[in-house]
Amino acid sequence: MIPAAWERRHVLSLRDFTVAELDIVLQTAHSFQEVLSRRTKKVPTLQARVVANLFFESSTRTRNSFELAAKRLSADILNFAPGTSALTKGETILDTAKTFWAMGAEFMVIRHQQSGVPQTIAAEMDRLGGHVGVLNAGDGCHEHPSQALLDLFTLCQGFGSDRPRSESLKGKKVAIVGDIRHSRVARSNLYSLKAAGADVHLAAPPTLLPKEFDCYGATRHWQVEPALEKANIVMTLRLQRERMDQHLIPSLREYHQQFGLTRDRLKQCHPEVKVLHPGPVNRGVEISSDLMDDPHFSLINQQVASGVAIRMALLYLMGNYHTGPLT
Amino acid sequence: MIPAAWERRHVLSLRDFTVAELDIVLQTAHSFQEVLSRRTKKVPTLQARVVANLFFESSTRTRNSFELAAKRLSADILNFAPGTSALTKGETILDTAKTFWAMGAEFMVIRHQQSGVPQTIAAEMDRLGGHVGVLNAGDGCHEHPSQALLDLFTLCQGFGSDRPRSESLKGKKVAIVGDIRHSRVARSNLYSLKAAGADVHLAAPPTLLPKEFDCYGATRHWQVEPALEKANIVMTLRLQRERMDQHLIPSLREYHQQFGLTRDRLKQCHPEVKVLHPGPVNRGVEISSDLMDDPHFSLINQQVASGVAIRMALLYLMGNYHTGPLT
Amino acid sequence: MIPAAWERRHVLSLRDFTVAELDIVLQTAHSFQEVLSRRTKKVPTLQARVVANLFFESSTRTRNSFELAAKRLSADILNFAPGTSALTKGETILDTAKTFWAMGAEFMVIRHQQSGVPQTIAAEMDRLGGHVGVLNAGDGCHEHPSQALLDLFTLCQGFGSDRPRSESLKGKKVAIVGDIRHSRVARSNLYSLKAAGADVHLAAPPTLLPKEFDCYGATRHWQVEPALEKANIVMTLRLQRERMDQHLIPSLREYHQQFGLTRDRLKQCHPEVKVLHPGPVNRGVEISSDLMDDPHFSLINQQVASGVAIRMALLYLMGNYHTGPLT
Repeated sequence: MIPAAWERRHVLSLRDFTVAELDIVLQTAHSFQEVLSRRTKKVPTLQARVVANLFFESSTRTRNSFELAAKRLSADILNFAPGTSALTKGETILDTAKTFWAMGAEFMVIRHQQSGVPQTIAAEMDRLGGHVGVLNAGDGCHEHPSQALLDLFTLCQGFGSDRPRSESLKGKKVAIVGDIRHSRVARSNLYSLKAAGADVHLAAPPTLLPKEFDCYGATRHWQVEPALEKANIVMTLRLQRERMDQHLIPSLREYHQQFGLTRDRLKQCHPEVKVLHPGPVNRGVEISSDLMDDPHFSLINQQVASGVAIRMALLYLMGNYHTGPLT
Repeated sequence: MIPAAWERRHVLSLRDFTVAELDIVLQTAHSFQEVLSRRTKKVPTLQARVVANLFFESSTRTRNSFELAAKRLSADILNFAPGTSALTKGETILDTAKTFWAMGAEFMVIRHQQSGVPQTIAAEMDRLGGHVGVLNAGDGCHEHPSQALLDLFTLCQGFGSDRPRSESLKGKKVAIVGDIRHSRVARSNLYSLKAAGADVHLAAPPTLLPKEFDCYGATRHWQVEPALEKANIVMTLRLQRERMDQHLIPSLREYHQQFGLTRDRLKQCHPEVKVLHPGPVNRGVEISSDLMDDPHFSLINQQVASGVAIRMALLYLMGNYHTGPLT
Repeated sequence: MIPAAWERRHVLSLRDFTVAELDIVLQTAHSFQEVLSRRTKKVPTLQARVVANLFFESSTRTRNSFELAAKRLSADILNFAPGTSALTKGETILDTAKTFWAMGAEFMVIRHQQSGVPQTIAAEMDRLGGHVGVLNAGDGCHEHPSQALLDLFTLCQGFGSDRPRSESLKGKKVAIVGDIRHSRVARSNLYSLKAAGADVHLAAPPTLLPKEFDCYGATRHWQVEPALEKANIVMTLRLQRERMDQHLIPSLREYHQQFGLTRDRLKQCHPEVKVLHPGPVNRGVEISSDLMDDPHFSLINQQVASGVAIRMALLYLMGNYHTGPLT
């Protein structure tokens, strides 16, 4: 089952993921999805191996998704709660990570409000020769690779054939709508969608879509209509309420009027358009409530379900890198 | 072991529980109590199935009791901590629940400070056809079915024969004393005790025992003495300190003088009277400290022990409903 | 594997630990370290037995270390989070502990900011005849036995032969440097190091090293140099930032200048000196950053690793006391 080509100990960014690597992740996730459809949704793959969930920034959805993925691989899990942590006692982040390494953690799933923290920890782990795989579960505004991979998996299953392959998105028009500037989800998706050959359009108010985004090979729009036109896929992004206090948007209501996805706006898209949102959703802001619940368009629940399979796949592949094929 | 008559996917309220259903729960809990007396206190019943503990209101005792019950059934557990949750990010409670459903949770144990939340989530799960069983672990002042069932189990074991049956409480005088008005424990117990044929008396200051309680078929008293007289069972309820600030009681000391259970007051009861409290106890308020520790009268520790067996039974029965008899 | 001489249900203090007992712990930990070097780092020893982690004082490192130790013995774990606890509802600490006992916990790992709490709980558990083993995971300024035992284990492995024995520290000069007055780590280490026959020197400013420490049979110094001279081992202690506000030290900078361990100061020690710190470390306060990271001197990472093996050993030995040899 393990493709020979997987050579990553860490999953930190999708920037240099090849199509072949994307397809390895998709196919491995597909196999695990089959496991999840069984009566006993568990495999002994990572038995007695330790996954440390180091969520310096709090999270419900992603943390639980990783926790469940790890449990279904029979791993043991250590959780790090920022509130009760040694950090408040003056310890550095690297020392915290090293403590988990010294205890025996072989995987670290790291979320941090600052960009680059998972990369720094991964470099330190490599320096220690510690055989630890680091997975970026969201760092600042930088990247959130597992989210983009689960989006890709969800979309390839929606558009493709039996076995999900990234090429099924070739030439598809994807509109990413919302607070692109602060979105690690958007950045990771830009890499994977471009690698898959999709035609990516970005739409946001100018304050939330600066020029620097030209480098990604996507088309920028400061209005939502041209992005939505004939789009096969619409990815809505979460809008944080703080953006209003920062004077980046006039109000949530005005944002919704101009950029919120509604049944009406969806008419400009391809008739079989699919809608994604990484969650948690502010109903009536990024997307209208009725549209979110419409299973004909919304793949939001499938995204959550895909998340467990994708994260099982990533831990599995990373674990396989360390120790050779698991038999 | 599974009685044919169990037809509940959810356990939300004891309002319409039949005697037959109560007895199914009691007998299943009795079987699990036997498991808990073994060297290896674990059965593979719910292996790889996911129980989501969604405690929107914080809890030590009930959450740990459910967690241990789930572990002893070999389930995997996801915990939801309200502080670090998506709720603070604007997500609705239903969307939070749907996220856990989409991840693969098959059981949701829900506590919420608002009455009706577990019911709303259960209805949504049914609408989704999601084969999810919802268990109300306490909703506002409304109900706390697993607490009343563990009280029933504890009492039937105290009064009955080898196999606990609800009929062993027939005709027994039960005094429920304390903050009945705000008590979900009292409301659930009223249903199960009346179904079992007990003679239920309520005692509290008028501010904590309004007229609406007449509908339950219990006798109301605004003084404790008539309720205690010849009582076979006294259930004391937790008094929250806030009640003083709300001017519902003059002071904790005065409350104790008028309604606190003491060794002296107990003399009015049946000589073999048994005392319960759902915990956590304010020693010297609801009950005097020495009485609480007297194993001749107090069943408080047995209640906690029964809790694990009852919760194993409920999860087992709910799980059995979904998928047919587990062999 | 189990030595016949282990007769402790609880591990509360190292005050009266004999050399024979220390060696039993070291040898059992050594066996578990062998388990931890295997592919499958897990043994079924405590399967389905419940370890309650009652950390009334928050902790990352010690709590996770115990959690991992318990998981590697296949135990089930209940966690107590002080913030969300029944304590805030007026319950006494003893009642909280009794709740976990009544649920079926057989081990309680207790940390509390007040000295003596684990001892009180252990006495209550014995009174209840509850076959519960209590482990002190740090009580106030009193003791932290598992930390001192992991220090001993780390040192014996650094200095001794294949199988760690406490006699390998006989005659070694150990300098304990830092906030000795408030250190439960120092107190526990004083007992075990003296039992092992080490020559213990204490160094701290007078405000942090009062006269009462004369009773331990160690040499007191109010300057660091005489303690470090030809020392084989230097134990640095954590300095809490509060000590500055309490006017016990002038500033962190001045503390570091006078008592901080640096590469320069280390030249006074034995050339093969080993440096320990219980963590979390304030880099540049108790110890200079470069020295902390120098694997030639620093055993800090080994301490963390030893922690898991030592805690497995303690739970194992305590568990064995209850029920007879596990076969």
